[in-house]
Formats: sequence, structure tokens, C-alpha cells
Amino acid sequence: MKTIQLNSRPVGIPKLSDFKFVSEEQEKIADGEMLLKASYISVDPYLRGRMMEGKSYIEPFELNKAISSGMIAEVMESKLNGFSKGDFVSGMLAWKEVQVSNGEGLLKVDAQKAALSSYLGVLGMTGLTAYFGLLEIGKPKAGETVVVSGAAGAVGGIVGQIAKLKGCRVVGIAGSDEKVNQLVSEFGFDAAINYNTSENMTQAIAEACPNGVDVYFDNVGGEISDGVMMNVNRFARIIVCGAISMYNATSVPMGPRVQPILIKNSVLMQGFIVSNYMEKFGEAIPQLAKWLQEGKLTSTETIVKGFENTPQAFIDLFEGKNKGKMIVKI
Amino acid sequence: MKTIQLNSRPVGIPKLSDFKFVSEEQEKIADGEMLLKASYISVDPYLRGRMMEGKSYIEPFELNKAISSGMIAEVMESKLNGFSKGDFVSGMLAWKEVQVSNGEGLLKVDAQKAALSSYLGVLGMTGLTAYFGLLEIGKPKAGETVVVSGAAGAVGGIVGQIAKLKGCRVVGIAGSDEKVNQLVSEFGFDAAINYNTSENMTQAIAEACPNGVDVYFDNVGGEISDGVMMNVNRFARIIVCGAISMYNATSVPMGPRVQPILIKNSVLMQGFIVSNYMEKFGEAIPQLAKWLQEGKLTSTETIVKGFENTPQAFIDLFEGKNKGKMIVKI
Repeated sequence: MKTIQLNSRPVGIPKLSDFKFVSEEQEKIADGEMLLKASYISVDPYLRGRMMEGKSYIEPFELNKAISSGMIAEVMESKLNGFSKGDFVSGMLAWKEVQVSNGEGLLKVDAQKAALSSYLGVLGMTGLTAYFGLLEIGKPKAGETVVVSGAAGAVGGIVGQIAKLKGCRVVGIAGSDEKVNQLVSEFGFDAAINYNTSENMTQAIAEACPNGVDVYFDNVGGEISDGVMMNVNRFARIIVCGAISMYNATSVPMGPRVQPILIKNSVLMQGFIVSNYMEKFGEAIPQLAKWLQEGKLTSTETIVKGFENTPQAFIDLFEGKNKGKMIVKI
Repeated sequence: MKTIQLNSRPVGIPKLSDFKFVSEEQEKIADGEMLLKASYISVDPYLRGRMMEGKSYIEPFELNKAISSGMIAEVMESKLNGFSKGDFVSGMLAWKEVQVSNGEGLLKVDAQKAALSSYLGVLGMTGLTAYFGLLEIGKPKAGETVVVSGAAGAVGGIVGQIAKLKGCRVVGIAGSDEKVNQLVSEFGFDAAINYNTSENMTQAIAEACPNGVDVYFDNVGGEISDGVMMNVNRFARIIVCGAISMYNATSVPMGPRVQPILIKNSVLMQGFIVSNYMEKFGEAIPQLAKWLQEGKLTSTETIVKGFENTPQAFIDLFEGKNKGKMIVKI
């Protein structure tokens, strides 16, 4: 069985040669363990950070060891209470076709209740990231204007839809006309901006947000965010969720200092990771599931087939080749 | 009687020629008004922002009109209920030796209870800014490390002392050895850094804060703050109170983008102005007065004498010539 390891730490945009496929002998399970077969692998921009050395909120990946991310796996064999052959589990797992687990950090998921892949998306870390970032930090009020960058990405699309459910005017920023059209026609955004064809982001945001920006859910950072910052209202809340525009930077990214804007308008900027809200996952998942069942949340996925295509799927994130959640189906 | 008007909008560091002295005839008071004689004028870095054109949280000063700031004045004559000759009042007033007021926004202050100038300092906007920024945004917990920039300035000295009262390790940043020594010996800071003699702020902060930085009260912005940002702990809170290092900038100040640090460590940055907390002034002022009376808060003032020296006192703020609160005594 095959595993995908980190071959070298990427410099700039990751390359296929930063990954390697290694064959390993299949391990045997002991009492209290189970054997898992990978079903779906979630590839996410934040993994880029773990490929670098240095202190972060989670340990960096080690060279010549398997990469890990959110995955759905099927139980092949179990000597672990509560897990039986044929069950599906969700959690952080290694990029291995088959692996042994003691069940730590894994949740059983119900393939009858929702599509398995949705446990990596709307009902998984993606949905929870959107939910807690927007509601706990952004605290949007009906009638306010919410701007989302990376709006056609996995988290962004859900953020915008939840903001609409809360009665806000929602403006998305994405990288193609196709994405921008989808945001308005399928996801119900009030307006959307193609940053690749907008010459002046500050002006484009001003036109799309005649009452200014109250909440900004930022997945990208960089010049797109500079344009949004020029339009924030007094007491605006900026949710700093991701900075995909900087993840491949090879020097410290520079930009306009934000402090004068924060002071002038009493603005809040808050970085977060979804696990900060772990205690509240139990209240959020049923709410997200309810919205999904009621058709109030539309989930978009880009499904790539084949374990061997996992590294390329990850690399494609940085060119925005995904619409919604990027998932590898094994 | 004389008034000080804005003669031209400063470019870079304000110059004396940006101000002008104009003689005006003394106004007569009508019913519901009183005549005030200036006693003390507070000069503050934030006034620099009001000298520029453009939208801010308060209106810009108009050219050829009197500048205004926090002042203490004495009632010379009154046809206004509640105010009598010999009373002292505090509030936003014009830079005029004598002026007419209807009392709006003015508070009577008691010259017996505390030195009049302290109503501009510890018991005024300065103390309230320190109090609310630190306690409402910073929420320091005993044992945490609090870093204050502009620590020998009006707000910074009070911030550090309140943080000590809350049981924190307090590290100040200031611009001379004399100031640094005063912070430790008079104000009880645990350590202080002279940014003018520190070659590497990131390293200087790391050495002064072996457990990292939990709360950063930022009065200055710029490279000093970049060094602090490199040392923030998970869940750090950054109070963005002032950015004196940027107030005289003639182009948009650039620096390392903060978003990656905010995400990595789930950091909060919050800009504010003291009037956001106006509803709570009534609880804060007695607390500040109590600490002052008990000797738990030491207030430092730099008193400049003479109405005619007001513009120069303001200009001197940007070279750090003040220790503590800069006040002009008429």
C-alpha cells in the first residue's frame, strides 16, 4: 500500500517533486486498533504552512513522513470497541491508502444522512470554520454588509450563504467570471467582484458596498484585502481566516500598515483557527446539517479522482482551480 | 484676546508656521452662557490627524479657525445655571485665551480633590484611554506579560501601572535611557527597552519577555511594533491605541503584513478611541481617582508655561520631548 510523504519543503508554489510516493508493508492491527482504508482526502491551503519549518499552531510536517489532513476512511477490520467493519470515520489521518488507528480524534459519520464528502466540507472543518469565524468574530447583524474574499473557495461560499441567512448584504470576491456568476446565481450573493479583471479593488469594493463594509471575512490577504480595508466602516470586524496570497511567499510580504485604519474606525481584526471553538462544535454541526437538509446551504465540491492525484490537487488550490471544497476521492 | 488657528495643513512634522496667532475682540455672554479663561491646554498626538483633511472619526480642523483640544478653564462670568464665577471646567475647548461657552460637553472639576492638570491626565481622557484600552480590549490576567510602547508617554505610563496593579509582568518601550530608567524605578515596570539603542527590537523584546507577549498596548506602530509582533503568544491581544510613528508620514506607511501572525497565533488586534466607552466613564474615573489617592498611580507631567508656547509643545510630542502628559499652563 502507498503513502504520500513530504520529499522537500516547498519554496514558493509547491511542486510535484516536493512529494513522493512510498510503498509500505501493510501493518497488522492489535487489540484496541482498527484498519482504515482512505475514502476521501481533503486538501486545504493551510497545509502549505505545515510544510514549512518553524513554530506554528500545529507542528510542521516532517520530511520523509506521511502528510496528514482531514480524511474520510472506511473501517476494514476492527479490534476497537465502537467501530465495526464497514463504518466510516472522519478526522485527521495520514495520506496512506491503508492505515492503522486507535480511533483517537476520529468521529463516526453516517453515510445515510449526508454524502460522505460533506463531512469534510459543510459538515466538517470547512463548515465549522465558516460558521465560527463569521458568527463568533464577525457577529453580523441584519442589514450589515459582509464582504468575503476567496468567496468561491470551500470556506468562502459557506460564509456568504450563512451571512445571507442572517439578513446581510453579501459581496464576494473571486478570481474568474464563472466563479463570480456562480456566487450570485447559485449562492445568492448580492454582488461579486472578479479581482482578476478589477483594476482598482478599493473602487470596486466601494461600488459594490455603497454603505461601506461592516464585516470582512478574509481568506486571502494581500492587495485584495488592502482594497477592502479602505472601505471599512466604524466598528468593522475583520475575520482573518486565511492568507492564501501569502502562503507561497519567499520573503516577508509587505503592505500598507493597518494600524491607522484600525484606530480611525475602531476596527477589530481577529485571527483564528477552527479548533479554538472545539467546545461548541456540538451545537454548530446540527445547525449546519439542518441548513443543508433544508436546502439553505449549497455545497460545491471539486472532486479529483485517484490517490495518486492528491499532490496535484493540493497544488491546484494555489491557482484557484477548485470551486468550493477540493476533495480527492480514492 | 488671542486665539491659535490652523494656518496650513502640516506636511510631515508640523512646523510653527502651520499655526497662527490671531487677536479677536472679546465676545459678550448671553443668557445660558458663560465666559471661560483657559487654565491648561492638553496637547496630544491624535490632534495631528485632525490637522489633515479627509474623513476620520472626528471632523478635521478647519483652516483659519481655532484648534481645539482637552482643556481646563476657569469661569470668569456666568449666566448659565450650575456654573459660577471661580468654578473650573474640563472638556474640549478652543485654543483661545478667553471664550464663551454654553456648557455643552463640559464637566465641573474640583481643584481641592486633585491638581487641576490631573483632570487632563490620569483623571481625564489620558487615564480613561489607558484604562479602557488595557482592561476592555487587553483583558490582562495576572501572570501574563504586557508590553507597552510609548511607555513614557501620557497614556503608556498609566497603562503600565494599571497592568502592574493587575499582577502582570510589564515591559515598556521608550526612546531614552532616562525614560527607561524612570519606567523601572518610578513606575515599577519589570523591564524597559530603549528603542533608540536597541539594534534588533525582535530580539530585545524576546529577551525582556521570556514567556512571550500576551498583551501589547501600542501607542506608536511602525518598526517597534513589528518587533513586538514577532513575539506574540497564542491568543495575544493587541490594543491599537496610537501610531505616533506614522502620523507625520507623507506616503502610505508600508510594513510586514500582519495577517500571517494573526492567523498563526489566533491574535486579536483592536483599534479604539476612548469615547467608545463613554457610557462607562462614570465607573472608571472613581477607580482612577482612588488609585491616584492611594499612591498606586504615579502621574508624570511635562508642563510648558505660556499660551504662546502651545504650538511648540505640540510639535515637541513628535520628538518625544515630553515625559508623561504634555500640558500647557496659561
